[in-house]
Amino acid sequence: MSTFCIDPRLEADSKPVCALSQCDVRLMNDRRWPWIILVPRIEGAVELHELEYSVRQAVENETAIIAGVIKQITNAEKINIAAIGNIVRQLHIHVIARKTGDPNWPGPVWGFGKREIYSPAELEQFTVNVKSALCEAGFSHED
Amino acid sequence: MSTFCIDPRLEADSKPVCALSQCDVRLMNDRRWPWIILVPRIEGAVELHELEYSVRQAVENETAIIAGVIKQITNAEKINIAAIGNIVRQLHIHVIARKTGDPNWPGPVWGFGKREIYSPAELEQFTVNVKSALCEAGFSHED
Repeated sequence: MSTFCIDPRLEADSKPVCALSQCDVRLMNDRRWPWIILVPRIEGAVELHELEYSVRQAVENETAIIAGVIKQITNAEKINIAAIGNIVRQLHIHVIARKTGDPNWPGPVWGFGKREIYSPAELEQFTVNVKSALCEAGFSHED
Repeated sequence: MSTFCIDPRLEADSKPVCALSQCDVRLMNDRRWPWIILVPRIEGAVELHELEYSVRQAVENETAIIAGVIKQITNAEKINIAAIGNIVRQLHIHVIARKTGDPNWPGPVWGFGKREIYSPAELEQFTVNVKSALCEAGFSHED
């Protein structure tokens, strides 16, 4: 039985999209940028580089898959990938689709301004788009 | 013959530490934070997730090695790892050692305040510390 629980701050700030083999994929509820977090289902994980080798590889592979999917569905100019965790220590990897002229471009998204939440219809559409792109690319997922 | 050239902005902002198999390891010349960048020696590389699989693995493995070394030699509280590249598109991975109370903690380092350059002695000492820690951990490198 897994004892993994997502940090309540991550849970409050994001919405579930789907589950890959190692990570939960969640959409940050901030419509200013297409912004996914991957949360590896590993109790107590904090630092990416301190994961067991095969587990780190799995997390990094799923991060690359999501980066490709997000870039494709948003037509992003640049993907930002980061494991920061200074505030919420539970390991989570940010994958953000950026383009010229978006809020705070070319600066980072963290800590900038106030978030703007999605409508329920926008959340649903984003989730459908991610899942469809995963399927088209041949990657299985669970809801 | 390799045609790889480091971006002149990365070159101007950082000092060489050593070379691993896939990446050049450079110290950002900003003494506010211990801040390494890894620059894969791959002409035209921009997005981490778009590298060939084995190359991405090599870059990620070297990133993990450097993260461990930097955490050890600085006694960091949290390591920040990021591939952003909104300004300089040449692929480079940031590895930053953070602790409570450092400048802009717990916010990110990018775009914050003005950099404070190292003295030549500090640069030399940091380079020696990284190389020694790499050797102790059994990782080979070139100058």
